[in-house]
Amino acid sequence: MALQLIIGNKNYSSWSMRPWVLMTEAGIPFEEKRMRLDYTAADSAFKKEIVNINPAGRVPVLVDDGLAIWDSLAIAEYLHEKFPEKKLWPADAKTRARARSVVAEMHSGFSALRTHFGMNIEAQLQHVGPRVLAEQPQTRADLDRIVQMWSDLLASSGGPMLFGTFSIADAFYAPVVKRIVTYGLPVPPVVQAYIDRVQALKSVAAWTKDALAEHDFLEGNEDYRASR
Amino acid sequence: MALQLIIGNKNYSSWSMRPWVLMTEAGIPFEEKRMRLDYTAADSAFKKEIVNINPAGRVPVLVDDGLAIWDSLAIAEYLHEKFPEKKLWPADAKTRARARSVVAEMHSGFSALRTHFGMNIEAQLQHVGPRVLAEQPQTRADLDRIVQMWSDLLASSGGPMLFGTFSIADAFYAPVVKRIVTYGLPVPPVVQAYIDRVQALKSVAAWTKDALAEHDFLEGNEDYRASR
Repeated sequence: MALQLIIGNKNYSSWSMRPWVLMTEAGIPFEEKRMRLDYTAADSAFKKEIVNINPAGRVPVLVDDGLAIWDSLAIAEYLHEKFPEKKLWPADAKTRARARSVVAEMHSGFSALRTHFGMNIEAQLQHVGPRVLAEQPQTRADLDRIVQMWSDLLASSGGPMLFGTFSIADAFYAPVVKRIVTYGLPVPPVVQAYIDRVQALKSVAAWTKDALAEHDFLEGNEDYRASR
Repeated sequence: MALQLIIGNKNYSSWSMRPWVLMTEAGIPFEEKRMRLDYTAADSAFKKEIVNINPAGRVPVLVDDGLAIWDSLAIAEYLHEKFPEKKLWPADAKTRARARSVVAEMHSGFSALRTHFGMNIEAQLQHVGPRVLAEQPQTRADLDRIVQMWSDLLASSGGPMLFGTFSIADAFYAPVVKRIVTYGLPVPPVVQAYIDRVQALKSVAAWTKDALAEHDFLEGNEDYRASR
C-alpha cells in the first residue's frame, strides 16, 4: 500500500511543505491528499475531517498502512528508519546530532519569525519585511540566528546544502527560504546563494508551482493583504 | 569523558527537566551544570556564557566529548542512538512512530498551556488555574487534548507509563504533570493516577526536591506571584 501524505494549502502550510519536499527530493513515492485549511470558518470542513485522521487535529499526517504519524519531525524520523538507503540524516553520528539540533531548534523555536512572516508563496510583500524587522526586534534576532546558522553550516560542510548533500535539515528550512523571498528580508551573499540553490531544487520548484496555481485566499493566513 | 548536561533553574526550566528526568530515570550517568536563568537582566550572565556553548543561546545542552547537542528532542534522539540498551523509545516500529508523534506534538505545540501555565514547581497556584482556563479558551483546548492523549495511550498500552514502561514520552510530558499540579487543573481519575505515578518516579521526585530547595525567584518566570 502506498504511503499517503496529508497536507494543507501549498501556499500557506509551512509544516506541510517539509515532509512533502523531503519525500519528493529523496524520491520516496507517496499519494498526496490536500485539505483546504478553512479552520477559521465556523463550519470548518477541515476541522470536522482531520480529527478522524489525527487526534491532534493538524496537518501534515503521514499514513502508512493504517498507521497515522503526525507532526513533521516524527514523520521525518519515521522515514529515516523506513528508508535508510535514502540517507535522510547525515551518516556520521556527530554530524547527525548537529543536524537534529538545528532541526529541533526550528521545530520548537523562531516563533517571532513564524508569527510575523507567515509563509505566503504567491504574495509580494517585499515592502513589508524591512518594516516588520524594525518594529519587531525579535524577528530581527530570529533572522540573525538563521543567517549565522546557515553560514556556519555551509562553511563547515562546504555545501551545496546545509550538511553537504540534501538532508532533513534543508527540508525543514525550505519554508524559511520562501519567507525570506516573500518578505524581501536582507541576507548576506553566502546565504542568498543557498537560498537560490534551495529554490532550484526540483521538489521546492514543484511545490512553488503548485502553490502559485492554488489561487485560494484564506483570511486566517493573511496578515498583510486585504484580498488577492 | 562523562556526559555533561547543562540546565536552567529546576523550578522553572521545563525544557531542562525533560533530558534530566530521561537520563536519571534510565540510569545514564552525567555531570550536571546548572545555569541561573537571569536572561531578563540587562547584564545577564546567562546570555553572556551560553552563546559560547550553544549558538542557539538556550538550555538544555548535552555536551559529549566537545560536541554540543542542543534542544531537548535532539538530545533524546542522540541518547537513543548512543544507548540502545536503555530502550528510550518503544521497541516496536509502529509504537515508536506513535511515541514520536506525541512527543513532537509537545515539542512544537501546546503554546497556550506553556504561555499561561509556566512551570513553577514551588508555587501554590491552585486558585489561578480554573480562572485562566475560563478566561483563555485555548488553554482549555490544550488541556482537553492532553487528557484525551494520555487516556488513549494508557488504555492502549495498559500503563503504568504512556507506552507501558518508561520512555522519552513520559520524560517529555513530566513538566506538564508539574503544571497540572501547580495550577490545580481538573483531570479525570485515570489521568490523576498517571500523574501520581509520574510524581513518584525517582527522577521526578529528585528533580522536584532540588527545585523546592532553590529558593530563587526570577521575575521573568513569575506571571502570578509578586514575590515568594
